[in-house]
Amino acid sequence: MSDEFGLRPGEEAIALSPDYDAGLHFIGRIRTPWTRRAECPKNGTQTDALCTIEVDPLFAPGLLSLAGTSHVIVLYWMDRAPRGLLVQRPRHAGAPRGTFALRSPARPNPIALSVADLVGIEENRLTVRGLDCLDGTPLLDLKPYFATTDSKPEARVGWREA
Amino acid sequence: MSDEFGLRPGEEAIALSPDYDAGLHFIGRIRTPWTRRAECPKNGTQTDALCTIEVDPLFAPGLLSLAGTSHVIVLYWMDRAPRGLLVQRPRHAGAPRGTFALRSPARPNPIALSVADLVGIEENRLTVRGLDCLDGTPLLDLKPYFATTDSKPEARVGWREA
Repeated sequence: MSDEFGLRPGEEAIALSPDYDAGLHFIGRIRTPWTRRAECPKNGTQTDALCTIEVDPLFAPGLLSLAGTSHVIVLYWMDRAPRGLLVQRPRHAGAPRGTFALRSPARPNPIALSVADLVGIEENRLTVRGLDCLDGTPLLDLKPYFATTDSKPEARVGWREA
Repeated sequence: MSDEFGLRPGEEAIALSPDYDAGLHFIGRIRTPWTRRAECPKNGTQTDALCTIEVDPLFAPGLLSLAGTSHVIVLYWMDRAPRGLLVQRPRHAGAPRGTFALRSPARPNPIALSVADLVGIEENRLTVRGLDCLDGTPLLDLKPYFATTDSKPEARVGWREA
């Protein structure tokens, strides 16, 4: 049940400024087997599907020396997500949670992040495992994953343990 | 030594479109002890400095239920970085490397990512450890770090081992 703004009880949304502070270039597209939101896995660990990251040929020189890297951080743009929702009530949650305590695509800057296994590179196309997004999702950035700075196996999320 | 475009030998840059595909809202500012680039640590593991993430009060409701989370993924905007550089020659590297194989701030979408220890939250201010950026850096997003999907201790970076 949601109100006239599409909010469930306990959710909060704000109106965002029509002006932006900075701009993004889409540098490619992500090809996945999923064309409807209901088909998408909840996160990249819940699927073995191979996906293809198609880097726009203009940006392909930026892939130099990425081969041999086992995991890449993929940043992509959730272009269908509402941006003003600050408190959300996910179906799995008993209580409302802040957007910054969630990985929901709905957020002021809907930049999604997944750590993907890099299976192969051929010209401007990367074959990866571990993505969860819709086919055609715009690509924003690729970064090498550094275990020394990015891996925190001891990390805990408070509300998950409550 | 660099040429008239500021490129070192082996570096490649492109001219980017003056049009953007999507827009960003700055949702806060990061307060750090570093006011000049040369003072910044190379990455967040090289400093114990406490930094403050000031979330704009407009967006502060999004922090609900983040307390108790040990690590946050911080996305921030490297607003001084050049965006057209696709092949770079970092000082520590013997050979040119693609931008997408590096964590350099210079990239088509200069979104930086750090995993920070969340030390405390007071109203709209987070105290964290593990950032490396200049004082005043614009904040784009905060996400809880999930060890189940984000921690890959076995990850390897090819060019680091060559």
